Amino acid sequence: MTTVPDELSAARQRIAAAYDPALLEDAGHRLADLLAANLARAERSDGAVLPWAEPAAAVREARAFLHAHEVARAAAPLTAAGEAAVSDRFADLVKVMLERGLNLHDPRYIGHQVPAPVPIAGLFDAVGSVTNQVMAVYEMGPWASAVELAMIRELGEAIGWAPDTFAGTITHGGSLANLTGLLTARNVAVADAWDQGLAGDGRQPVLLVHAEAHYSVARAAGILGLGSRQTVRVGLDERGRMDPGQLDEELTRLRTENRPIVAVVACACATPIGAFDPLEEIAAVCRHHRVWMHVDAAHGGAALLSDRHRHLLAGIELADSVVWDAHKMLFVPSLCAFVLYRDKRHIFDAFRQDAPYLFDPAAPGLADYDSGVRSVECTKRAAAFGLWGVWSLFGRQLFADMVDVTFALGRAFHEKLAAAEDFLPLHEPQCNIVVFRHIPAELRNAPPERAGDFQLELRRRLIESGEFYIVPAKHEGVGALRVAIMNPLTTAEHLDQLMDALRRHGRELLQERA
Amino acid sequence: MTTVPDELSAARQRIAAAYDPALLEDAGHRLADLLAANLARAERSDGAVLPWAEPAAAVREARAFLHAHEVARAAAPLTAAGEAAVSDRFADLVKVMLERGLNLHDPRYIGHQVPAPVPIAGLFDAVGSVTNQVMAVYEMGPWASAVELAMIRELGEAIGWAPDTFAGTITHGGSLANLTGLLTARNVAVADAWDQGLAGDGRQPVLLVHAEAHYSVARAAGILGLGSRQTVRVGLDERGRMDPGQLDEELTRLRTENRPIVAVVACACATPIGAFDPLEEIAAVCRHHRVWMHVDAAHGGAALLSDRHRHLLAGIELADSVVWDAHKMLFVPSLCAFVLYRDKRHIFDAFRQDAPYLFDPAAPGLADYDSGVRSVECTKRAAAFGLWGVWSLFGRQLFADMVDVTFALGRAFHEKLAAAEDFLPLHEPQCNIVVFRHIPAELRNAPPERAGDFQLELRRRLIESGEFYIVPAKHEGVGALRVAIMNPLTTAEHLDQLMDALRRHGRELLQERA
Repeated sequence: MTTVPDELSAARQRIAAAYDPALLEDAGHRLADLLAANLARAERSDGAVLPWAEPAAAVREARAFLHAHEVARAAAPLTAAGEAAVSDRFADLVKVMLERGLNLHDPRYIGHQVPAPVPIAGLFDAVGSVTNQVMAVYEMGPWASAVELAMIRELGEAIGWAPDTFAGTITHGGSLANLTGLLTARNVAVADAWDQGLAGDGRQPVLLVHAEAHYSVARAAGILGLGSRQTVRVGLDERGRMDPGQLDEELTRLRTENRPIVAVVACACATPIGAFDPLEEIAAVCRHHRVWMHVDAAHGGAALLSDRHRHLLAGIELADSVVWDAHKMLFVPSLCAFVLYRDKRHIFDAFRQDAPYLFDPAAPGLADYDSGVRSVECTKRAAAFGLWGVWSLFGRQLFADMVDVTFALGRAFHEKLAAAEDFLPLHEPQCNIVVFRHIPAELRNAPPERAGDFQLELRRRLIESGEFYIVPAKHEGVGALRVAIMNPLTTAEHLDQLMDALRRHGRELLQERA
Repeated sequence: MTTVPDELSAARQRIAAAYDPALLEDAGHRLADLLAANLARAERSDGAVLPWAEPAAAVREARAFLHAHEVARAAAPLTAAGEAAVSDRFADLVKVMLERGLNLHDPRYIGHQVPAPVPIAGLFDAVGSVTNQVMAVYEMGPWASAVELAMIRELGEAIGWAPDTFAGTITHGGSLANLTGLLTARNVAVADAWDQGLAGDGRQPVLLVHAEAHYSVARAAGILGLGSRQTVRVGLDERGRMDPGQLDEELTRLRTENRPIVAVVACACATPIGAFDPLEEIAAVCRHHRVWMHVDAAHGGAALLSDRHRHLLAGIELADSVVWDAHKMLFVPSLCAFVLYRDKRHIFDAFRQDAPYLFDPAAPGLADYDSGVRSVECTKRAAAFGLWGVWSLFGRQLFADMVDVTFALGRAFHEKLAAAEDFLPLHEPQCNIVVFRHIPAELRNAPPERAGDFQLELRRRLIESGEFYIVPAKHEGVGALRVAIMNPLTTAEHLDQLMDALRRHGRELLQERA
């Protein structure tokens, strides 16, 4: 240490305190107790689902903690006795984080397509975080890389692809996965797009999408330079599924216009009402016109693991690229999204470059294991540790169970809504997503807009009460309510309670307005 | 539960076992012990830095665990007594994950620009993972959103911007952060790029970049439809810094060609040798030509928190967009990258759309707190929990300490190399990145290519031995060695040992080849 200035010895001491294994151990034990107690509390619905706080006040509070330290430190400088103080303070901060967060493990959380994850998955993720096992080059995260490739193998085979014929990568979310798949399709459809760019060619490439595809698809078109409006929205049938006949007509028209076609984006399922597109028929149309078929199975991919529901995805094996989010219906924490290619050669079409300081020419075979050549991220978290851990601990059956239970609840809820005079289900659910309205007698003859606005006001009142967490939606342009049953601990009784809570808050709202 | 089929009751039981708080508690305590023991072991350099494993074998092993469960389950079905078995098996899996990973906390890890993180940061991250606090809409992660906005405020003020004038977002890595910043610049420079796409306009937009900018910049140009080759690489001075005079000439030329200029990308610091561009002078040139100035401060941004090194970034406050990775020199686990905009109005230029089911028209003010309108991801992890936690626990001083210690070691290593006859430092370091060659007497008169190949072979031998972890590089087209001192527990003695280890492996390599 001779050449490091002496004035840094105090810095070294402070660093050593922060990196002390004893602190990690003590803090880890406190964390285990706090997380378990919080989980038990949430599972028994003790407290608000959403502890509502005004955002500006929450930001002020979060900032105050950043500066409280200096005050505390001045009063009690770190010494040997200071270690207990640090882990005490760690526990205090964790308590704040738990108290201020949405309680996804409360069975009354029936909100966005974000699950109440298998809790232990978060502990597997913590192994990756604390040790910072990352990817980009194999060497940096040999086990992270191995786990990613093992999971890709498992999911690709679940799709129905033969070993060693397909490839894939994990990325940070379904939006980025759609972006990656469509980037690949763009580079295949417009051969010099990567190197030369899209300007300078008079022909406008076009993307054909399920009319209600997730907003990340139009967003990908905007990012990729295709233009978010250079998408053709293919019409749907009465159950919200892409109509293969209309797709065929659009493709025929575009071919005569000589426009480069980047891809057809089908959904399994689409976000609004969870409709699964008829993939076999869409694949036949795509093959006839020789266009890239991309399936956004972010939500529904998990049904491939269920004997009961696998049929919803028949034909997915014909897709050129598939997106499947493990952080949705495989119930692991965010984010762990797969993009999978039927033909493994396509994985190198997305990104066409190298970085000499990263990829080692002295070991050329390793590039096959270096994730950096396959993803938007350079350095990448060990995003699959949670999925690999849960799968290894409980087996594939658990995922089938969670799909079966939550899909069954979606149908059960629909039956309840249909049986109630004051509720209106807006579609027959194919999975665990249900869109509906509460129409009390007073609104039965109201104009649609008024009934729609009522849903949104009702929802805000409900979630701020902390009793349930559901989300707003629009159905045919008019406000509605939406649930995604993303907590496998939710039961049919909770859905009865939700309907009662909506009735009660609805009455209050109408009385206040009267 | 009446309407859920009876045949799902077994599924419900299996789910309840996986979501049991007692299992989380037991597993959490085991995790605390395992992580702390592993940290202590790594810090005392007990074992290999990199436990080298052939990648194909590692993938096979990772797959075997996925299927081992079925075997074990058949032998001992889950019962009340089964709970201990699950947490035993959890501990076994964690041990495997720890044994197979690169040991970044070993002070002999001196490799990529990925830090040995402050260990407790990973525990803060675990709070986010286990409870799945996410962002997109404020409601989903009120505390995650508040923490993100609090950290953006802190980092923007460190840049020198006044409160309430700037904005920012956190994304999953520096590559994605560069992509986001340049997407914004593209949308500002080419007004209808987002909606209409880049095709159809004959003018080719161009990006001007530091000649050795990180590969994610050219990659961003490829993704954004600009074309990875539509970049002008601005020449460097003798210390590897962008030359403002050459930048001025290029901009003058491009303006006469009437090409839309997306941005100038400066580096603080550039990847190859850690050179910090003269930002004040570059900003003056950019303002003169009225072009967007983007600073990739992924690595060097942290120097803003150090009184000793802040001067390296003078002028960064004049940039239009800045990228700053907390998962580099703020020593938190991957991934937590900031993209910051001097003018807060620009944050809405990156993504121009909405998703009706996400953003609640009944509470319009909330959109300011909804991260989904500002990032490529839709759902986003609570990526700042680790940074917020460490900052709250130890204060801003710890970050300054880690910058000061590791930068000082970079200079100390350079002195050692310069003083040794058989080592050749290839630049004078401005930070903790040092590129060099080991040139034993036998190679002193060898052709450059031979000496360069020797470095790469030597490195592979060294890292596979498990003694140190350093990375390969090219300097002026010829192989070299590179260290980034990303572990603040590394000392000058470790650097002496590294030189000795290189000498020993070098001798063996030369003997084998002789």
